Parts: sequence; C-alpha cells; structure tokens
Amino acid sequence: MKELKEKILTEGVAIGTQIVKVDNFLNHKLDVAFLDRVGKEFHRRFADCEINKILTVEASGIAVACMAAGHFGYPPVVYAKKAVPSTMTEGFYEAEARSFTKGTVSMFRVSEKFLGPEDKILIIDDFMAHGEASHALTQLVKQAGGSVVGIGAVIDKSFQGGSAKLREEGYRVESLAVIDKIEDGTITFV
Amino acid sequence: MKELKEKILTEGVAIGTQIVKVDNFLNHKLDVAFLDRVGKEFHRRFADCEINKILTVEASGIAVACMAAGHFGYPPVVYAKKAVPSTMTEGFYEAEARSFTKGTVSMFRVSEKFLGPEDKILIIDDFMAHGEASHALTQLVKQAGGSVVGIGAVIDKSFQGGSAKLREEGYRVESLAVIDKIEDGTITFV
Repeated sequence: MKELKEKILTEGVAIGTQIVKVDNFLNHKLDVAFLDRVGKEFHRRFADCEINKILTVEASGIAVACMAAGHFGYPPVVYAKKAVPSTMTEGFYEAEARSFTKGTVSMFRVSEKFLGPEDKILIIDDFMAHGEASHALTQLVKQAGGSVVGIGAVIDKSFQGGSAKLREEGYRVESLAVIDKIEDGTITFV
Repeated sequence: MKELKEKILTEGVAIGTQIVKVDNFLNHKLDVAFLDRVGKEFHRRFADCEINKILTVEASGIAVACMAAGHFGYPPVVYAKKAVPSTMTEGFYEAEARSFTKGTVSMFRVSEKFLGPEDKILIIDDFMAHGEASHALTQLVKQAGGSVVGIGAVIDKSFQGGSAKLREEGYRVESLAVIDKIEDGTITFV
C-alpha cells in the first residue's frame, strides 16, 4: 500500500535495527481517516473470503480492526485481552504470546462466548514481527473450533520471520507494508 | 441515547451493585456499526464546540473515540498509554488514575509531542464511574497547556459520583446513558 509506505518513510522513526516507531499515526496518535483507507485495503485483499468476525488484540490492534470492520459490512470485532478483567467471569480461551520488542510474555484471553466453531475469522493487527501475537490469536480460534481465514498486518517486519513462519503453518498472510531492513536510521521495504 | 439504553438492558449484565458488564458490544466484543452511531451522538451533543483532537485511554476507549472521530471530521485521536512502551523515548505527560472496579492504580501517559497549548480536546471514554480516568486525562491536557472542551462518556454510573465531581470542577460532561442504580440484577436509568 503506497500511501502507507510513504507515511512510514515520512512519519516513522527507525530505532536500531529492530524497531520502527509509528506512534504518529498507528499507535498512540491515530490518523483515523488514514486507518479507514488501511481497512479498505484489507477488504480489497480479502474480498474473496467469507469472514464473519474480526479478531485482534488490545490495544493497538483495535483501531485498525474497527476501521476494517466497516468495509467488511460490520462483522463483530473481538479483541483479546492481556489481563483478566473483573467482569470476565465465565470461561475463556487463552494463549501465550511473547513480545520480543517489549521483552515480555502476555497471556491473550477471549471469552468463550465470543469465539465458536461457526467462526470464520480474519485476524488483524498493527504489526507483524516474530509472529507471536498472531500465532497466539490463531491458537484461540483453534481452541474454539473456528477457522482462521487470513491474517492481516499493517506493517510487517519480515526480517523477523513472523509472516514466513505463519505461512509455513498454512495461514494466508496479507501485509500492507513489508519491511526488509532497518539500518542506520533507514527503513527499506521488500 | 435510546438505542444505547435498550442495548444495555438487553445485552448488559448487572453484577452486584457497582458493575454493568457490556462486553457484548462495548468492550471485548465490539458492535462497530452501533459504536459509529454512538460517535454520531457525541458529535450531535458537542456540535457547538471547536475541537481539534480527541483524547481517550487504552484499551476500551479506543473504538468509541475512533468511531466518533469520523463524525467530527477526523481530528487526530490520541490514546493515553498505561505502560511505557519501549518506543516512548521522548518526554511524556503523566497522571495517576485509580480504578475502583479493578482495584488498581494506573499511570496514564501521553507523549509531549501529541498534546500542546493549541489543543482543544474532547475526552471520550466508554465508562464514567468515579471519574478517575477522565480526571487523569484532564490533568494531561492541563500539563500540556491545552483546554478540555468537554468529556463524553458512553455509560455513566452516576451513583459513583464521577460526572458530578467533574462538573463541579467546571467540565462539560455528556453521558449517553446515565445509570441511577444497579440492584438485584436490574439496571435503572436516571
């Protein structure tokens, strides 16, 4: 997605060799009109698929997933939680996800009410790095007996191997901007 | 907002005397088409105001804030973070917020880049309870030298006193559904 790549180059900040900071439009500060076009592009890529639910994880996936939902005819958006809220009183599915960027391990949880065997799920997230978050989301769908139709990532740091690994597992992955390398403050796309 | 009240009564679950669980449409599972109408209602209520930015807090405020943004002509949405991400390398404003529901204290943070003296801020959140979250957001705006135009809450548990306290402080608060009482599994609106 050309506009996304330009935005990454003009507004993104390369940090070291692993991180691109896009808090100016994708997380922290949100350019919602732009994210709506990102959502439209996800719909274009997955237009051939039957999807009845969008799954993401809090917090930075929520905006993109919501804007995408409109273009898919407003299926429910479910976001996995990283903490057990006091109101999560019934059973839930859970799967572990390591964040290499943050050096943390989170437990992703979705209430059993909101995922089931009838679900045809599109997973959407802001970043694809080592693929841990998306993998954890696929595990939640699997536990519920549902099927993952595809995985959409806004920015794919392909050099960290996540999308390749998920494709090896048989998932269809659509990334809107694929980064090959971050070096000396410069971001290079594939 | 009539549709919201009906949705709370049909899909919400009253827990004890303090909690109404609306994970079926407002947090966890999101009814995005409905949240777009919630956003439209916020715009109707604040139509007389000049607003150049919407401020909320992760995670459950993000969806509502994004859907509202479209109706306000897509001002930037900024969400306060509850943890310091590895990419938050510059200065930030911070303010403490206690959650009585969760029994926790969070530190809300917004990068100094994203709030300034020129800002006319609409604060939007999913719930108004004791007003701690909204109060913390007003403090961030104050630190930046900006002004708070108003505070919009989807569900206001008015018996917990938050909206009254914020109005005493001089803020304009617009709540779309105001709950008077939660008792014996029944939710009563004001």
